[in-house]
Amino acid sequence: MNSFLEKITSTILKNQSILCVGLDPDLDKIPRHLLERPDPIFEFNREIIQKTQDQVCAYKPNIAFYEAQGEKGMSSLRKTIEFIPKSIPIILDAKRGDIGNTSRLYAQACFDDLNVDAVTVNGYMGTDSVSPFLEYKEKAVFVLVKTSNPSSSELQDLTLQNNSSVYLEMAKKVSQWNKEFPGHCGAVVGATAPSELQVIRSILSHEFILAPGVGAQGGDPKELVRNGLNQDDSGLVVNSSRGVLYSDSSKTFAESARQRVIELNELLKK
Amino acid sequence: MNSFLEKITSTILKNQSILCVGLDPDLDKIPRHLLERPDPIFEFNREIIQKTQDQVCAYKPNIAFYEAQGEKGMSSLRKTIEFIPKSIPIILDAKRGDIGNTSRLYAQACFDDLNVDAVTVNGYMGTDSVSPFLEYKEKAVFVLVKTSNPSSSELQDLTLQNNSSVYLEMAKKVSQWNKEFPGHCGAVVGATAPSELQVIRSILSHEFILAPGVGAQGGDPKELVRNGLNQDDSGLVVNSSRGVLYSDSSKTFAESARQRVIELNELLKK
Repeated sequence: MNSFLEKITSTILKNQSILCVGLDPDLDKIPRHLLERPDPIFEFNREIIQKTQDQVCAYKPNIAFYEAQGEKGMSSLRKTIEFIPKSIPIILDAKRGDIGNTSRLYAQACFDDLNVDAVTVNGYMGTDSVSPFLEYKEKAVFVLVKTSNPSSSELQDLTLQNNSSVYLEMAKKVSQWNKEFPGHCGAVVGATAPSELQVIRSILSHEFILAPGVGAQGGDPKELVRNGLNQDDSGLVVNSSRGVLYSDSSKTFAESARQRVIELNELLKK
Repeated sequence: MNSFLEKITSTILKNQSILCVGLDPDLDKIPRHLLERPDPIFEFNREIIQKTQDQVCAYKPNIAFYEAQGEKGMSSLRKTIEFIPKSIPIILDAKRGDIGNTSRLYAQACFDDLNVDAVTVNGYMGTDSVSPFLEYKEKAVFVLVKTSNPSSSELQDLTLQNNSSVYLEMAKKVSQWNKEFPGHCGAVVGATAPSELQVIRSILSHEFILAPGVGAQGGDPKELVRNGLNQDDSGLVVNSSRGVLYSDSSKTFAESARQRVIELNELLKK
């Protein structure tokens, strides 16, 4: 099995895309005709994946959308993970994190049981909450540094005594974790925070940065690419979920999603 | 149905206990004879609950222990939640948190689907990541303020420009959230941080504080009670998991857990 790093490097090149599609199926938003099927969530994902798999670098299911539907939702997630071609990396957006012995179990749930390639982690609890995820040889971790939501500034932007900020200190931790586990640790930086992204990129000169929030949340693709790529013009993965998934609620929804992905790929070209 | 606040106030009085037992069943640690049963995790929890339900104020299953066992583990969790008497509040230790529309789905998963009374939340993403949980009328939220693990100091203890710290600012957010949603928001403060607990209590003068880490993680019960109770000698819930669950690996494990709970209740008396 190829590692996350090998997979994503290869899909970025092959599909000429740094776009990750968030597989966040919302029963209130998916086309009505799918609700008659036995597993609407999986059917929705299946069509989206079929129509976009040659145009994306990764898929990012957010586990909350599946957990909210209980056992049935988790079964749809498992089928979705199984359906995604093995060459395309799956980033599970789970924002997990706990004390060491418990984070180990979350890592087991994500990497051994669900068998995804990468996971998002909340680093508020520090190194021992993140390292159990980093220890998986073929996998990767994206730590929340500066998030895309309106309230992200409340804690993350607090100014420290040394004039640094909480999110910059988190970025420094990511850099340290990626030194200890080379190629395993990247950062989540909201596409809605382009100036912060520039500063974070100066700390994380070669780490992977996952930037969600293009589209529905309002992030500008051009600015993102300018501020987010590293010196080798790589290391940036941009995620769009709602912006890609829900532009069309008719039977042609997946074809419309493909068109939206192609448009975004153009906008994300340097 | 009674609210979390009504339930916990009533169990604390009735059972004369501020002890919450963490239901964290580890297949490597539970008594060997249970492994022959069809659902060892549920059998373990069932006996623990039967023997301790008149001596505790709440149960706190950590969802990581169940997720790590995949679908089977989640089924054990559902059976466990169902088995706990309705009068005893269940705090799901899940440390969730995401952008607003996604946190809403996590809240749905915890409160509607799993039907627990309270949940732990990671507040790094700020108000809009926490409020979807707070909006549930009968439920409560415990936000991570100062955690019990060795690395908690890395981010949480950073000193701010105004000489405050990250965890104190998080405590202030908890106070604000509990003003907006009275009785709905409490804090998680590790039992391993008694001096920090004292300062946090001065900010959260009447909020509920959940203090995990007594026992295996080394927190001292006497100091905890001295620093953690509010002015009305209440508002503190102390959690022990490994310290209660694994003192005996024979067939008498549940009776031993009960004895350990009774001892802890004594130590936690003011």
